[in-house]
Amino acid sequence: MTVAIKRDVLERTGEAPASRGEETFTLAMRHSGSRQVTLRYEITGPVLAPILIVGGGISAGQHVISSAEFAEAGWWEPQKAALAAARVLAIDWIGADGAFDCPIDPADQAVAIATLLDRLGIARVAGFAGASYGAMVGLHFAALYPERLGALLSVSAGASAHPFSSACRSLQRKAVAIGEQGGNPAAGVALARALAMLTYRTADEYRVRFDAAPTVDGDLVRVSAEDYLDAQGLRYAGRTTAAAYRRLSESIDLHRVDPATVRLPATFVAVESDWLVPIEDIHALADAVGGARFVLMPSLYGHDGFLKEEAQMAAILTDFIATLEPAR
Amino acid sequence: MTVAIKRDVLERTGEAPASRGEETFTLAMRHSGSRQVTLRYEITGPVLAPILIVGGGISAGQHVISSAEFAEAGWWEPQKAALAAARVLAIDWIGADGAFDCPIDPADQAVAIATLLDRLGIARVAGFAGASYGAMVGLHFAALYPERLGALLSVSAGASAHPFSSACRSLQRKAVAIGEQGGNPAAGVALARALAMLTYRTADEYRVRFDAAPTVDGDLVRVSAEDYLDAQGLRYAGRTTAAAYRRLSESIDLHRVDPATVRLPATFVAVESDWLVPIEDIHALADAVGGARFVLMPSLYGHDGFLKEEAQMAAILTDFIATLEPAR
Repeated sequence: MTVAIKRDVLERTGEAPASRGEETFTLAMRHSGSRQVTLRYEITGPVLAPILIVGGGISAGQHVISSAEFAEAGWWEPQKAALAAARVLAIDWIGADGAFDCPIDPADQAVAIATLLDRLGIARVAGFAGASYGAMVGLHFAALYPERLGALLSVSAGASAHPFSSACRSLQRKAVAIGEQGGNPAAGVALARALAMLTYRTADEYRVRFDAAPTVDGDLVRVSAEDYLDAQGLRYAGRTTAAAYRRLSESIDLHRVDPATVRLPATFVAVESDWLVPIEDIHALADAVGGARFVLMPSLYGHDGFLKEEAQMAAILTDFIATLEPAR
Repeated sequence: MTVAIKRDVLERTGEAPASRGEETFTLAMRHSGSRQVTLRYEITGPVLAPILIVGGGISAGQHVISSAEFAEAGWWEPQKAALAAARVLAIDWIGADGAFDCPIDPADQAVAIATLLDRLGIARVAGFAGASYGAMVGLHFAALYPERLGALLSVSAGASAHPFSSACRSLQRKAVAIGEQGGNPAAGVALARALAMLTYRTADEYRVRFDAAPTVDGDLVRVSAEDYLDAQGLRYAGRTTAAAYRRLSESIDLHRVDPATVRLPATFVAVESDWLVPIEDIHALADAVGGARFVLMPSLYGHDGFLKEEAQMAAILTDFIATLEPAR
C-alpha cells in the first residue's frame, strides 16, 4: 500500500488531508532475526512544508495532533500550533500492538521508518523531533541515515539508558511477568504502568498534589496518590498487552548509540527535574555530538516535561522547525 | 515471662549475658482495635550502662549486634563498638512475624515498647536511637512517653512520610497483592522488596555499580542490576510473609507525629542523597522540635546511609550515647 494522497494534487494546493496507512515488510532486527512487520503511520500538515518525523514515548503512537480527518486529540495536541509549520509523519512503534514478543532495539524502529520512507517515495526528511523513546529512535535514525535527515531534535534521551532507570524498568517488567504467571496479565501491566508513572514525575509534584494523609477503612489503607495511580494503570492496561509493554520497555534499555555517529545539526533538550534521564547524561551526549545545541528546560514535572511544559516545548519546536531545510 | 537476667547479679558484676525474651499482652491499636500481641525482644550490653532502645528499618529486628550468646551478625553490626557504651534493648516489630493482617501504626509499636518496659520493670530509658521506621517509632515514643525517655536520636525520618515515597510503597504493596491473587505471594513479596531496594539507594550508586549494557540471550533481556535485585527480593521473600510486608510497609505511610509533642533533647540526622525521606522534611521536623540538633550526613547511598556510612553513623551514635543520662 502506498500513501493515499496524490502528490500532484497536493503540490498544486499545498494542502492535504491527514491520512493513515500501513506498510508490511520484512525487517532485519538487531537481536531477533528477520521478522515480517506491519508498520502503521499517520501523516498530517501542509504538503509543501518540510517533512518532520515525530516520535514520543513508548505509549505514544502515530496520532500526534488532531486534524479534520482524525479529530481526537493527539498525544502532543498542545503542540499543534507549533507543528503546523511542518508536515508531520509518525508511526505506531513496532511492538506496540503486541504482535510479537521478542527483543526490539530502538535501531529497529529507525530501520523500519527508513523502509517506510522508501515505500512512500520520500528520499530525505528535513527533521526528526523525538522525545523520550522517540528521541532514542531519532538518534539511531540520525546515526544510520545521515544522508536522509536534515536535523535532529532530541528531548529527554541520553546515549544510553541510565542504569538506575533500567533497574526500575526491569522491575516493571517483572510486575508484568507476575501478572502473566498468575493468569492476570492486565493486573501486571496496570502495576507496571503505575510504577512507570512514578518515574515520569517528581517527588516535588507529589508533595504539592498528594499531601493528604492516608485513609484507613477497616483493614484497608490507601495513600493519597493511590486512586490516581490505579486509574492510570487500569486505563493503560486496557489498551496495552503484556508483550507490548515488556518489549517496548525493554527497548529503552537496549538503547545505546555512539554519539560520534551522529553528524548533523542537533539540539538536545533536558528537563531539569528529570531523574529518569538525568540532565548530566543528556549534557554529556550533547557535548559528544559535534556542534550540538543544549537546552535546559526548567520544570516541576520531570521526565514528563515534554508533555507538561507546553509553552516551553512549543517554543523549542517552533525554533527547531524554523531551522529546517525547505521541502524539495 | 519476665527478663531472664537477675538484676542483683547484674548490678554486682556490671556485666550480663545478652538475653532474649517475649511478652504477650493486649495492645489497644490505633486503627485495629485491641489485639493480643507477642512482643519479642533482645537486650545486650553492660548492665550498668544507660539503657538505649534501638530500632531500624521495617526489616530490622531485635538482633542489633552480635554477642557471645547470639553470635550471628546483627543488622547494625558495624555499630557494635559505638553501641558498647549502652545497654541495648530492641524488639521485633509487631507484625513482622505476619501474625496479624491489619493496619499497624508506628504509635502502636511505641505503646508496645512501653508495655514491654513495664513488664521488664524499666521505668525510664536513657535514649531511643531509631533509623528509618525505627526513628518514626522513636518519635511516637518520645511524644507519648516524655517522662520515660531521656533523649532521642532520629535518623532518616520526617514528621510524616513523603507523599511520593508513600506512592512508591503503595505500589510495592500492590505487587504483593498481585502475587497473592495469582497464588504466589512470595513472588509478590520478592518484587516488592526489590522495588523497595531501589528506593533505599541512589541513581549515582547504580551508575557506578551497574553500568554494563543489558544482555540479550534469545528472547531474554536482562539489565545489569537485575541479578542483584532478584537475589535481594528472593532472600527477603524467604523470611517475610505477604501480610508482614503489607502491614509494616503501610505502617510507614501511617506515620504522622506532631513535632510540638516531642519535648526532649533530640538529634535529627538526614542523609544528603536520601530521596525517600528528603532532607528538607527532616530539617523541617528538626526546626519544629524545640532545641533539636540537625546533622547532615553526606553519602552516595541515600536512605541506606544509616547502614552504609558506618564511620559517620558510629560517630553520631558515640556522640549521642555520651550525652545520655547515667543508668539509675
